[in-house]
This record gives sequence, structure tokens and C-alpha cells, in this order.
Amino acid sequence: MTENARSHGRLSVSASLKPRDLMAERPRLRGAWTARVITLFPEAFPGILGLSLTGKALDQGLWALEPIDLRPFGEGKHRNVDDTPAGGGAGMVLRADVVAKALDQAAIGTPPDRARWPVVYLSPRGAPFTQATARRFAAAEGLTLLCGRFEGVDERVLEEYAVEEVSLGDFVLTGGEIAAEALIDATVRLLPGVLGNAASTEDESHSAGLLEHPHYTRPAEWRGRPIPEVLLSGNHGAVERWRRDMAERLTEARRPDLWAAYRRKPD
Amino acid sequence: MTENARSHGRLSVSASLKPRDLMAERPRLRGAWTARVITLFPEAFPGILGLSLTGKALDQGLWALEPIDLRPFGEGKHRNVDDTPAGGGAGMVLRADVVAKALDQAAIGTPPDRARWPVVYLSPRGAPFTQATARRFAAAEGLTLLCGRFEGVDERVLEEYAVEEVSLGDFVLTGGEIAAEALIDATVRLLPGVLGNAASTEDESHSAGLLEHPHYTRPAEWRGRPIPEVLLSGNHGAVERWRRDMAERLTEARRPDLWAAYRRKPD
Repeated sequence: MTENARSHGRLSVSASLKPRDLMAERPRLRGAWTARVITLFPEAFPGILGLSLTGKALDQGLWALEPIDLRPFGEGKHRNVDDTPAGGGAGMVLRADVVAKALDQAAIGTPPDRARWPVVYLSPRGAPFTQATARRFAAAEGLTLLCGRFEGVDERVLEEYAVEEVSLGDFVLTGGEIAAEALIDATVRLLPGVLGNAASTEDESHSAGLLEHPHYTRPAEWRGRPIPEVLLSGNHGAVERWRRDMAERLTEARRPDLWAAYRRKPD
Repeated sequence: MTENARSHGRLSVSASLKPRDLMAERPRLRGAWTARVITLFPEAFPGILGLSLTGKALDQGLWALEPIDLRPFGEGKHRNVDDTPAGGGAGMVLRADVVAKALDQAAIGTPPDRARWPVVYLSPRGAPFTQATARRFAAAEGLTLLCGRFEGVDERVLEEYAVEEVSLGDFVLTGGEIAAEALIDATVRLLPGVLGNAASTEDESHSAGLLEHPHYTRPAEWRGRPIPEVLLSGNHGAVERWRRDMAERLTEARRPDLWAAYRRKPD
């Protein structure tokens, strides 16, 4: 759990991956925020992250994505990365020693301070991922993500490497890759220059702890449903009041948990 | 909000998409669970869903994935799908009439009963997606997912088509595509035959309302850290008691909300 807990692990770094080559594939601004993703499916990246705003920002070097294939760190002829769970049961468990080698590889050139470079395991056991987590990750220099598969990962490597467990929600995925893409997307859009002028008020709404108010656009009437009059009034104060009121009503009706927290906040 | 609310919309179905052709790309078992995904980025699918267990099941026709490109339903020469928000503000809003045409296309051949075929919009305003939601979706015949982009979607189309809003969590993504993949992944792995013998106890653990206990595998000792003795004892009852105890302790420490709900449950 100490910051230098993994320093001795660096001695066993494998020479089979070349992060420098991976980095060279796209331009990258000096010091750009970087996600290193340890996965058995490196071909899944960048995936959706290569499209739209995140993809444009990736092409511009505003951030960088470096998948690290877990397989070459496996044991024996078949490069086994997992084994049966101690104590019995279904599924397979990722081996501590194998994952450690990949984490050592991912640590090369990164600051050992976990606040500057979080090391994250995506798991339903983790702390729920929120907009606040995304802001914290965006303020770091980058992060390393470990994508699980099978039943899970040996607990000891999580302890030894001070790995932070983060959960996308109370549901089970076949692997951590989609969760990693969600986490990276939510984080990257907060980096300077990524959203550009498309800056979203949605984020501001979430910052206030409320769900977002309803949206409308042309046509003014559709299937007998008109746009609420106040939105067409040109009265900015009235529009703002209506939106805040709707956001509060929606939050109270749909999310009693958020509503209670919002009511507790000092003005 | 009525079940046949969209029936009149079918008259305006565009002929520009051919779902039959899309279906023909992979084998598909009769009545296989199907996800229809309305998106501006159809090329993002199947993405990660095409790999690993979900990809294998897709290849076997155990489920089907039909992306529906929103763009051809847009207005004018540039096929505009969005417009500025009524009342002003940042971002753009997906037009009700454009989204309606895509929903009409997606509805072809599906049951109008929303319980048999949910129509879902992925948005941070929605009800939190949980394992219970995944089970409900897996019990349906399929579902239609609307992926947002920009600021949001015109509220009126959500009302007119009785669209269910579902949120992946309290964070903001650049679009709904990654959330759609997460929702589909969590749902598809619950379909018969998809996990095969890899059936996960993780799911059982979540069903009990607890976080999962720690996992261990070989080697028996690693960097001075031994596997807990009880797991190597061969005493199945003791192993089960230890795992339940650890799951309870973890849940109490990390997720007071789940812990409170678990304690309230009758035995």
C-alpha cells in the first residue's frame, strides 16, 4: 500500500511490449493525459473512444490511449493468465504474479504517487464511479486501468499495488473493457480542449446534484405537443427558473437519494 | 404512453434501411433476443460485444444486434438530426420528429407491449441500471436502445413513445453508445447458453445483495502473502462461511447503502 510498493517489481519488466511504439502511433502533446489499459482484448481499444469528440481529441494528441496486452505476461507455453479459485467454485481467477508483471510494465515512466497516477481495477466491488471521480481522474496525469475477466483477480495483487477498486454500477459485465471505456470517456471529456465549444450544461446540472431539466427544440408543435410557452418567451430569468424547477421536480420524483443530498447542501 | 401510441408513426417508415439485410449478416436462432440500437455511430457496434463470450454467442445466433443509423432520418440536404435548444443554452437537442422516424423503423416486427420489448433511452436522468434491470431485459424478447448525443433529446418523443429512461450511473458520457454496450453486455450474459459452463458466482453474490468476497489462486504464497488457510482446508462448509463473512464485511465497509438493504431483508 506504500507508494513504492511496486518499485521492486520493475526488475521483472518484460521486454515483449514496446510502449514507445504504441505511443508513436498517434501524435501526442507533451504531458497529454494518458490511459494505460491492461486487457486480454487490446483490439477492443480505442473502439468507440476513437469516434466523435473523444476520437478527434485522440487524433489531436489531447490525450493518449495505450492498451497493454495481458496475454504475453502469462505462464507456460499457453501463456495462462488465470487459475482455479482457492477454496473451489466456478470461474477462474487472474493470477497475482501475472497481473503484477503487467502492472510493472504499465508503471514505467509514471509517477508512483497514486493521486497523480491512479491505478484502477474495474469491479462491482469498487466504489461507485461518479462525476466527482471523473473530475479527480481528469486532474491526474493519467491512469492505469486493469480490466478483469473471468471470476476476478487474486486479492493479493490489489493489496500489494495499492489498486483502487471502482465500480460502474450494481450490475455484472463479462469483462472490464466496456467499463474502462465508459470511465475513460467520462474523464476525457473533462480535459481542456476536448469538448471545445460544445461545453455541456448537463455537466453543470450534475455538478449541482440535480438531474437535468427536459429539453425541447423545433418544431414548436409536434403531434399536438407544444414546446412549453416559457421557453419561447425570451425571458431568460423565467427560463432559468423553469429549468431549475423542473430539475428539482425530476430529481425529487426519480432519485430520492440525490434529492436528499441536494436538500442537505448549504445554499 | 399507450401501447399503440406509435402505431400511426409506422406510416412514415423510411425505406432507406433494410433490417432484413442487417439480420442476414449473422446466423440467428428463431426468436433470438435482439438489441436494436439507434445511433449516429452504427460502426461502433458490435465493438467489444463482438469479442469474448458475447461475441461467440452473437456468432452462434444466441442473440442479435441491429444498429439503426439515425442520420438517414435527418432533415434536409445535410440530414440534420438536431437543433438548438428552445429557451437557449449550450449544446444541441435531437429532434422529436427525426427520432420518431427511427423509433418507427426499430418498431417493425416487434411487440407493442413495452414489457415484451422495452424501448430505452440512455441518459443520466434515468433510473439507475442494476442487475435487476438486466434480468428484466433478458426476460424480454429484445429491446430498442436510443443513444443520445449532444445535449439531449426532445422530451416530447420520450413521452409520445413511452420511452423508458435508464442511467448507467451518476456521470456524464459524450454519448449513449458505451452505455448501450454496457447494458447489452450485462443483459446478454444472462441469456440461456451464453455463459455456458463459465457460470459466475459473482452474479449469485450480487443477487444476495452483497459485494463479492476476495478471490485467490496459485501460487499459495506470493511476495510474502499467503492464501488464507481456510481456503486450502478442503472444508467446504468453512470455506462458505468465510466467504459469506468476508462478503458481509466488505459490503458493510464499502457500501453502507447495500448493507442497510441487506440487513432489512427477511432471511
